Amino acid sequence: MPKAPQIILGIDPGMAVTGWGIIEYAGDKSRLVDHGTIVTAARDPHHERLTLIHEGILDVIENFHPETAAVEELFTGVNIKTALALGQARGVIILACAERGLKPADYTPLRIKQAVTGYGRASKVQVQQMVKALLGLPKVPKPDHASDALAIAICHAHTMTTTGAVESGESKPRPGRTPSKSPA
Amino acid sequence: MPKAPQIILGIDPGMAVTGWGIIEYAGDKSRLVDHGTIVTAARDPHHERLTLIHEGILDVIENFHPETAAVEELFTGVNIKTALALGQARGVIILACAERGLKPADYTPLRIKQAVTGYGRASKVQVQQMVKALLGLPKVPKPDHASDALAIAICHAHTMTTTGAVESGESKPRPGRTPSKSPA
Repeated sequence: MPKAPQIILGIDPGMAVTGWGIIEYAGDKSRLVDHGTIVTAARDPHHERLTLIHEGILDVIENFHPETAAVEELFTGVNIKTALALGQARGVIILACAERGLKPADYTPLRIKQAVTGYGRASKVQVQQMVKALLGLPKVPKPDHASDALAIAICHAHTMTTTGAVESGESKPRPGRTPSKSPA
Repeated sequence: MPKAPQIILGIDPGMAVTGWGIIEYAGDKSRLVDHGTIVTAARDPHHERLTLIHEGILDVIENFHPETAAVEELFTGVNIKTALALGQARGVIILACAERGLKPADYTPLRIKQAVTGYGRASKVQVQQMVKALLGLPKVPKPDHASDALAIAICHAHTMTTTGAVESGESKPRPGRTPSKSPA
């Protein structure tokens, strides 16, 4: 179980809207640090949208120096065209994490629901209510994609605690690259 | 129709193997400059594989200074899991192009076959034979993914010529970024 607080970045990837959430996790308590979205316009060319998403995630890492990150992994409920677009967004998000020394963990929606609510078939509203409760907030965080990203961060925190795999998500600088933060 | 020779980069994206091909195109003649593949191991984590693909494409652009680029776009014949992986590779490839001032064009396999052989249902072997013939090579370029990438570059050259849309693929530096090559 981690003793010092850890800053955790959760990301809900999407070509149109990518949600991000930052929590501070210590012992078994989570605290909201910040959350937001990166929005791109469908009328813009792919390379511009992907550049925006990549730069947006780099900015979040730059601003909050997360020590570990997690990204939602979706295999069901989408068609091929959506999967390709989602994959592209995911690719530049994972790359941005790697460029800053983070090795992002992957969680399926089922796993996220289980970790946050204890029930893999929980509704979106139930997950949002648990995010609000676990972070001790007066209201559900908005917009939805940012709330989903916070659920991913909470899932990662709980998974690290229960598996004792805190190291697995820790930042590890790549050769020749500057990590976002010195090891604590 | 372009008068000065243009250096064109074609890319066949893939998480395991990404093919790339560089041709020089002047008037209606294409010449092979170089071709190769970026190979990643399935046992390595996603973020390392995506970093390798991204750096590999940046290296190719650095070495050959293409003025325009094209990437294959696949919507059929793959399942969701493959589409997500392919999308991730595609995302970091398109990002690498954008980071060096290139706006990559997209072509479907149907379009590539039509442009290279004149027939949208041409076989893989027919496409490879046309790549060999159009580039005046003694043998079909190997491996297959590199040959496919050359077909994409040829498709882009022919499309630019027939549509007169040479400008659409030209390098355009992004604000605050250094293009790979000064405008000719």
